[in-house]
Amino acid sequence: MLDTFTLAPGFRAAATACGLKTSSAMAASNLDLALVAAEAPCSAAGVFTSNRVKAAPVLYDQEVLAQNAGSIRAVITNAGNANAVTGAQGLADARQMAALTAYALRCQPDQVLVLSTGVIGRPLAMDKVTQGIAVVASPAAEQGAPAAARAIMTTDTRPKVANTTVTIAGAPVTISGFCKGAGMIHPDMATLLAIVTTDAQVAPDVLHNALKAAADVSFNRISVDGDTSTNDTLLLLASGVSGAAIRAGSDAYAAFVAALSEVCTSLAKQVARDGEGATRLIEVVVSGAEDVAQAHAVANTIAISPLLKTAVHGGDPNWGRVLMAAGRSGAAIDPARLTLAFGPPEREVVVLRAGMPTTYAEREAAALFREDPVYIRLDLGLGSAQTTVWTCDFSKEYVEINAHYTT
Amino acid sequence: MLDTFTLAPGFRAAATACGLKTSSAMAASNLDLALVAAEAPCSAAGVFTSNRVKAAPVLYDQEVLAQNAGSIRAVITNAGNANAVTGAQGLADARQMAALTAYALRCQPDQVLVLSTGVIGRPLAMDKVTQGIAVVASPAAEQGAPAAARAIMTTDTRPKVANTTVTIAGAPVTISGFCKGAGMIHPDMATLLAIVTTDAQVAPDVLHNALKAAADVSFNRISVDGDTSTNDTLLLLASGVSGAAIRAGSDAYAAFVAALSEVCTSLAKQVARDGEGATRLIEVVVSGAEDVAQAHAVANTIAISPLLKTAVHGGDPNWGRVLMAAGRSGAAIDPARLTLAFGPPEREVVVLRAGMPTTYAEREAAALFREDPVYIRLDLGLGSAQTTVWTCDFSKEYVEINAHYTT
Repeated sequence: MLDTFTLAPGFRAAATACGLKTSSAMAASNLDLALVAAEAPCSAAGVFTSNRVKAAPVLYDQEVLAQNAGSIRAVITNAGNANAVTGAQGLADARQMAALTAYALRCQPDQVLVLSTGVIGRPLAMDKVTQGIAVVASPAAEQGAPAAARAIMTTDTRPKVANTTVTIAGAPVTISGFCKGAGMIHPDMATLLAIVTTDAQVAPDVLHNALKAAADVSFNRISVDGDTSTNDTLLLLASGVSGAAIRAGSDAYAAFVAALSEVCTSLAKQVARDGEGATRLIEVVVSGAEDVAQAHAVANTIAISPLLKTAVHGGDPNWGRVLMAAGRSGAAIDPARLTLAFGPPEREVVVLRAGMPTTYAEREAAALFREDPVYIRLDLGLGSAQTTVWTCDFSKEYVEINAHYTT
Repeated sequence: MLDTFTLAPGFRAAATACGLKTSSAMAASNLDLALVAAEAPCSAAGVFTSNRVKAAPVLYDQEVLAQNAGSIRAVITNAGNANAVTGAQGLADARQMAALTAYALRCQPDQVLVLSTGVIGRPLAMDKVTQGIAVVASPAAEQGAPAAARAIMTTDTRPKVANTTVTIAGAPVTISGFCKGAGMIHPDMATLLAIVTTDAQVAPDVLHNALKAAADVSFNRISVDGDTSTNDTLLLLASGVSGAAIRAGSDAYAAFVAALSEVCTSLAKQVARDGEGATRLIEVVVSGAEDVAQAHAVANTIAISPLLKTAVHGGDPNWGRVLMAAGRSGAAIDPARLTLAFGPPEREVVVLRAGMPTTYAEREAAALFREDPVYIRLDLGLGSAQTTVWTCDFSKEYVEINAHYTT
């Protein structure tokens, strides 16, 4: 699928290598600069990290989108350096990246969004970036979205792309995006960058609401250990060339949000599955909660538990760890009402029913913990709210990768 | 020190092996049943897990202390099985442990406190426990506090004991305790059990306040990943045989709390240092906060970060990870005011001053990350509140231990 992957109509992508990826940990591809360009000014929206330490490109993009979300032309992204904790020089460098890209594309600097990912606290090598931007905007660059998807990778082991085409308001609408973020918990890697494009015709404020709704059921449902890094950014650009107009509150809007959520969920699950050192995806479903917030608190506490992650890695169906995490989540829990099952619904093994251990077959449960994905489904028995969270297992390789990252 | 370790005057200890420790992970000592007995009824206080899933002995002890905190005679502790998520049978088993101990010691069941630690969700082998209690209360048991300290271990690599003798109100007062809990994050191991004894003369309500104050600066300051397990319990027994009376609000009370805090802090740091797979203690000091709660939020978020723990393990002074954790802690943070130093105060290396990276010597900082303990000191530059939290590094051995625990 990757080789034939394209952005939505109205957008093109390219990538080049300008020498920013020096760490061996980031050598999956030496491409390190990606350009997404729109043929004409388009609508844009962004969802950004809630971390109080925000990288320069995040501050810059928020400023641009506040003023100019109806007229964006490009997104320039570098990997290898997060341009975070870099002070005033970092902000000047982010602005300069936009200005150089605008110059090459013959648009205005405030029509260009900027993304960075990589090591924190080091100044950007602007000589390399300057040369790289000149190349990436030219025919000399490697053309196409697959190259761009590889260029933004850091410790990712594979590019992450997703797309769908649905009929909305009588016209085929494409939603297509790519992202990086090698899993869960490496906030210093400026974990997650995602660029999603569509040819739907959407006003910036409507686009923002749609993106927020889609993020809530996708990127905000993967376990990042409470982590939201300095750089986490999800951007959505809408070219409008399909002619399908998406207005707030319409059926078309609902269909658009559903399709966008599907693409974002696919991307988010790819991120969780590609966690550093991960061997398996874990899907945690919490049902029977009093409300969604409580369901999410429980699911998230289970999903970020190193104990649960290591148990899955070892294929050890240690359900005590699931209960423990639920118990300390802060959500309302009645131990006597908990029911816990492993495996997909059609062949689940219930290990705890109404608070009491069952006489389940341990060997069968252990086998389910060695499949990919691993399903963990906990019913709180208190209400009807439900949520799903995705994470991955936790291996020795995770320690290996993270014990020796910057040096 | 361990060989000569004794409890405070008025208490004796003994231990035996009754066959509850079957897992190889718990084979550091085959002793698995410990008795602490008071020569006469004494005052007692307890601090218990806040986890909503509480083990049977926790529920039982809370009931006993609510009714009978002025007349406790003994604490019976088993390792190998946490008696958690065991329903009504579990509660009956905890009561039976107290009754059997009371019978052997010729006191009443509601004068006996019960502690359990080990695997969750499995019924206690009461035949073994029954035989064991008969032995542990008899001369056939291994006598002395060192044996008791070994008996309560699970994945601990060494026993944890601490004591001090101070003059209070003109009399020498001894505070002496032992605990188990192999580090941070293994709530299914019913992480932390601690029994502290003193010969001070203290009424139960005063004793409870003193214990709460001491726990807040010790056991509540070690990183347990937000984890408080099903079984976490800290008990304090006061025999009064020193004759030193500790009354609320007195200088003697303050001196008692200080000495108790010293013992509890020593025990807590031993737990952090002995984290599963750990090679080094990490001391995180957060200063310059608006209030202690904010300081604690920041310090705790740093201390539970797998990224920071793996960086310390690798001797990699990756300060970006410290900032990231601070930024996502929920506390007030102004990135431009942060100052971060590694190493002990007398030879610290400042890596970030007022939000900007310094030109520090990376080699020097890396050397500080290979020492034991590792010091991480972050000043928020916003106020005058400060706190200290202890944790340990995060190794491949942690994954190894936790990937294959129950099976």
